[in-house]
Amino acid sequence: MKYDTQSIKQLSKRKRAQFINSLSGFKSANLIGTCNQQKKSNLAIFSSVVHLGSAPPLLALISRPHSVERHTLQNIIETGYFTINHVNETIYKQAHQTSARYSKDQSEFNQVGLTTMWEADFPAPFVKESIIRLGMSFREKIHIAINQTEMIIGEINFVYVPDNIIDKDGYVHLEKANSVTISSLDSYHSTKLLSHLSYAKPDKKIETVLRK
Amino acid sequence: MKYDTQSIKQLSKRKRAQFINSLSGFKSANLIGTCNQQKKSNLAIFSSVVHLGSAPPLLALISRPHSVERHTLQNIIETGYFTINHVNETIYKQAHQTSARYSKDQSEFNQVGLTTMWEADFPAPFVKESIIRLGMSFREKIHIAINQTEMIIGEINFVYVPDNIIDKDGYVHLEKANSVTISSLDSYHSTKLLSHLSYAKPDKKIETVLRK
Repeated sequence: MKYDTQSIKQLSKRKRAQFINSLSGFKSANLIGTCNQQKKSNLAIFSSVVHLGSAPPLLALISRPHSVERHTLQNIIETGYFTINHVNETIYKQAHQTSARYSKDQSEFNQVGLTTMWEADFPAPFVKESIIRLGMSFREKIHIAINQTEMIIGEINFVYVPDNIIDKDGYVHLEKANSVTISSLDSYHSTKLLSHLSYAKPDKKIETVLRK
Repeated sequence: MKYDTQSIKQLSKRKRAQFINSLSGFKSANLIGTCNQQKKSNLAIFSSVVHLGSAPPLLALISRPHSVERHTLQNIIETGYFTINHVNETIYKQAHQTSARYSKDQSEFNQVGLTTMWEADFPAPFVKESIIRLGMSFREKIHIAINQTEMIIGEINFVYVPDNIIDKDGYVHLEKANSVTISSLDSYHSTKLLSHLSYAKPDKKIETVLRK
């Protein structure tokens, strides 16, 4: 089936959202933990977290300012901090439930049954049930005028990863943390490793690399 | 294991790259097809394609200007068009090989053994072996000063998806296209559906949705 600009435009709003959201491929599944200055916590699922660079260690996410994600955006700007918590197989239904439009008085942590965890002096709440947890400081907001979205750039200040899933070369076995991946708006998948591949060079055949 | 800003900084360059690249979660796996004005084709794997919005239908990707991806960036700016081709289980090793530093005279299509496909009047080459293929027009380049990367925003002008993997609600079954997902810099995974979930509402329990 072929679609062009016209036939995409003619899809109903919901159908177009499902369709277009499918097309970028598999997405990361993360819970963004924030609080306001009164330490009232907020939790929201995002499928748009991307790697931006490793020195300095930066990740970015895309926020639609008129959606439920706006509490997250407000809190990040207000406090300067947020957490990124990997969604795993055990909590993916609760993670999805954070996308409901709860009022500002309700914390999604309580509403969906996930546990806030405060780590030393870090000013934003982590998700205790997540196996990989990152503490982020807000670095920059870039307004994307073309569709009124915001890109939030954060620097990784804190990482918790269990010892036994970090390989000696720095690779983190996401599969051993049961991290999941998202397709489109509402679908969750576990993964199965095909292979780790060697660094590509023009005159060399790709090989499979063994990790523990 | 806990890491902070200092202990991250102390990792060797390679180890830090593997480690930090692991932390955003699973990534999309796409081949970006471009050509220059002489129709010389170029192909590069990207794990940073993200959904930006569905009306208009926009995707974005992050490019490091000083890496092999620079040919892609130059071609997109020069011609105004590019393609996004999902990496699947059959071609993931060839896809990874496109990250080798080939010279500007060599087309990665030939070097790795993938087939260029020209679709009607579309000015950039598709990958014939990809099951999901998008034709994109370049809309905007946003310079990310904090680490000298570029965000490329493209609008979806053309989509090819096989009929039998599009659900009636617009959802595209990426698993049926054997699309893969990437972790860190070099690891490829197939996926297994956990569930499609219902739209989340504050007063309603999440349910599993059946799709064909």
